[in-house]
Amino acid sequence: MKIPQLNMSRRIRRTPFTQKVEQNGVTGFTVVNHMLMPKSFKSSIEDDYWHLNKNVQLWDVSCQRQVQITGEESEKLIQFMTPRSIQNMSVGKCFYIPIIDENAGMINDPVLLKLDNYKYWLSVADSDVILWAKGLASGLNLKVSIEEPHIYPLAIQGPKSEELMVSVFGEKIKSIKFFHFKSFNFEGSNQIIARSGYSNQDGFEIYFSGFDKGSMLWDTLWNAGLNLNISPGCPNLIDRIEGGLLSYGNEFNIENNPYECNLGIYCSENSNHDFIGKNSLEYIKKQGIEKKIMGILFDGNPCTSFTKPYPVYSINNKKIGQITSGIYSPRFKTNIGLSMILRNFWDAGNEVLVETDDNVMRKGIIKELPFKK
Amino acid sequence: MKIPQLNMSRRIRRTPFTQKVEQNGVTGFTVVNHMLMPKSFKSSIEDDYWHLNKNVQLWDVSCQRQVQITGEESEKLIQFMTPRSIQNMSVGKCFYIPIIDENAGMINDPVLLKLDNYKYWLSVADSDVILWAKGLASGLNLKVSIEEPHIYPLAIQGPKSEELMVSVFGEKIKSIKFFHFKSFNFEGSNQIIARSGYSNQDGFEIYFSGFDKGSMLWDTLWNAGLNLNISPGCPNLIDRIEGGLLSYGNEFNIENNPYECNLGIYCSENSNHDFIGKNSLEYIKKQGIEKKIMGILFDGNPCTSFTKPYPVYSINNKKIGQITSGIYSPRFKTNIGLSMILRNFWDAGNEVLVETDDNVMRKGIIKELPFKK
Repeated sequence: MKIPQLNMSRRIRRTPFTQKVEQNGVTGFTVVNHMLMPKSFKSSIEDDYWHLNKNVQLWDVSCQRQVQITGEESEKLIQFMTPRSIQNMSVGKCFYIPIIDENAGMINDPVLLKLDNYKYWLSVADSDVILWAKGLASGLNLKVSIEEPHIYPLAIQGPKSEELMVSVFGEKIKSIKFFHFKSFNFEGSNQIIARSGYSNQDGFEIYFSGFDKGSMLWDTLWNAGLNLNISPGCPNLIDRIEGGLLSYGNEFNIENNPYECNLGIYCSENSNHDFIGKNSLEYIKKQGIEKKIMGILFDGNPCTSFTKPYPVYSINNKKIGQITSGIYSPRFKTNIGLSMILRNFWDAGNEVLVETDDNVMRKGIIKELPFKK
Repeated sequence: MKIPQLNMSRRIRRTPFTQKVEQNGVTGFTVVNHMLMPKSFKSSIEDDYWHLNKNVQLWDVSCQRQVQITGEESEKLIQFMTPRSIQNMSVGKCFYIPIIDENAGMINDPVLLKLDNYKYWLSVADSDVILWAKGLASGLNLKVSIEEPHIYPLAIQGPKSEELMVSVFGEKIKSIKFFHFKSFNFEGSNQIIARSGYSNQDGFEIYFSGFDKGSMLWDTLWNAGLNLNISPGCPNLIDRIEGGLLSYGNEFNIENNPYECNLGIYCSENSNHDFIGKNSLEYIKKQGIEKKIMGILFDGNPCTSFTKPYPVYSINNKKIGQITSGIYSPRFKTNIGLSMILRNFWDAGNEVLVETDDNVMRKGIIKELPFKK
């Protein structure tokens, strides 16, 4: 079936880079945090995958909205929102943190940036974390200020990212370690640049401040990348699934707890710090979880697009999960997918059946994440 | 420019009626509350407008998600969230309510349904009100339970709605007054049906419970409507703008207060009840607002699509607003739009200039809302 168009309105916000991605032939968008995110250009997902693996790409990920929390009780509020301890977090560091509710249900899985002792950004996936933070702060009467600043992340991803970034921002770029950030100058404005990104490649994210200069930033990077075979891009489904990178709303949502999402390593449920959902998390840990996210290899015709979940069955035809993101991997030369799998069936090596949307049952096998050769 | 496609994933949730709207030739969607909403079918917006004015349509508005608040302190929490007094609200009634933050910024403008003294639904526009409510309840330690139930509104809109609904649900339908609801049986399940909807026509909204029977409900209504010239539809931009119906995220957002949105009639800022933002609201009322939403008629070529705001200028070329939703009205035989307009320029009858996206300056005139012949 032909994929329908996305009807535009002011409510689906444009970014500082939307005009540039349109000029570069974007063919499809999705909507994240009430904002446009490019999801496809003229090349196929597979061609785009190989390009990302060898070159450098510019991604408009402005939809990674920042929830800025400032004030003397900012650390207190953030610590209350996450089971991961931030007590030893340094300025200049990025932390991947689960945010959970009273039942330990996942509200979001943002990257936290510590800008100074009283200023933090939560770079969020697709839910209005700002309303959760504001509601808590209001109810608890905390001395914080919470807003969505005019920050629009632009990602530079791929093995040639560093070379490109050095040519624009200088040698200092090399000193940024993974999941750290530093400040840089662009046309007289201060820009936060982190070594991070939603791919399995080296890469950077510019937390761009200054809407009107978005095209200038894009052009500067683009021109510097011409001899590096630069292209426009977006999070690549093959690269993401191979690397076991999860997507809020796809692989998990508020009905799932962090353990089910393999995020137990970010849960200091035995630490001294208090946080929302701590009792629930302790209870769940004691009881054990009923399902968790695993990888699945499955055969048959290559899946080249993915629009809705595929049911997963045991070899005895019991429903044990659903593939929430799936695609053909040219590296593994078979289809790969991510699925929550019931406890008795989740061991790597187990055989399963996957029902694709052509109603064909395909043989599959459970794998650890990330997928490995 | 060709409108790009919407790339699908599990994160953009399908509804009980998505398969039916696909079978009926949907050509475009938007995303509201992380869920698909049909925005166009094969017919033009104008043909669709005339059809809506004369017949009956089925609209998949499942994206109007319900925030269900139950428990002995449910009324207390909801009253705290809105400046509109709900003290005299009866069971069976719908209230349109502004929800605001500490600064009196609009968080949402849902319809509130009182199901019983300890059970309410907020039928929300496009923001995660559930996180705001949960955050407040958690911070204030209120005795409430908050969840998103499996309720998927289906709207029946147009002058022949009542005739259609009577044929399916019986004469009792006629007894539902505007912005009231009653319970009905469908295939053994209990369904809430309200006389309401996001159009200027008569209509109903079925708060459908029972995902798997969605196609059955659609087919039942469809078959009953064959002799009434039924068609699939969606909120119609011409009908909506003519009627001055606002859209959260389009005409206003968290940076606007209720007075700017002509919602002052829902603000009991002098009542006894306490609510978040009360001080801010009193202050704003005392100071007076700087801008408010008005209608604009503007000439030139018919605007048949609308993708981004048009700047509005005074005749002296001062920027005084931006049209956030605009379209050609076949009834008024000119273009119409909605815009916040600065205080000194907002009087009905004032002449303005509108810059459309073809970079043409068009003559316009300020009008009261709703637009009147």
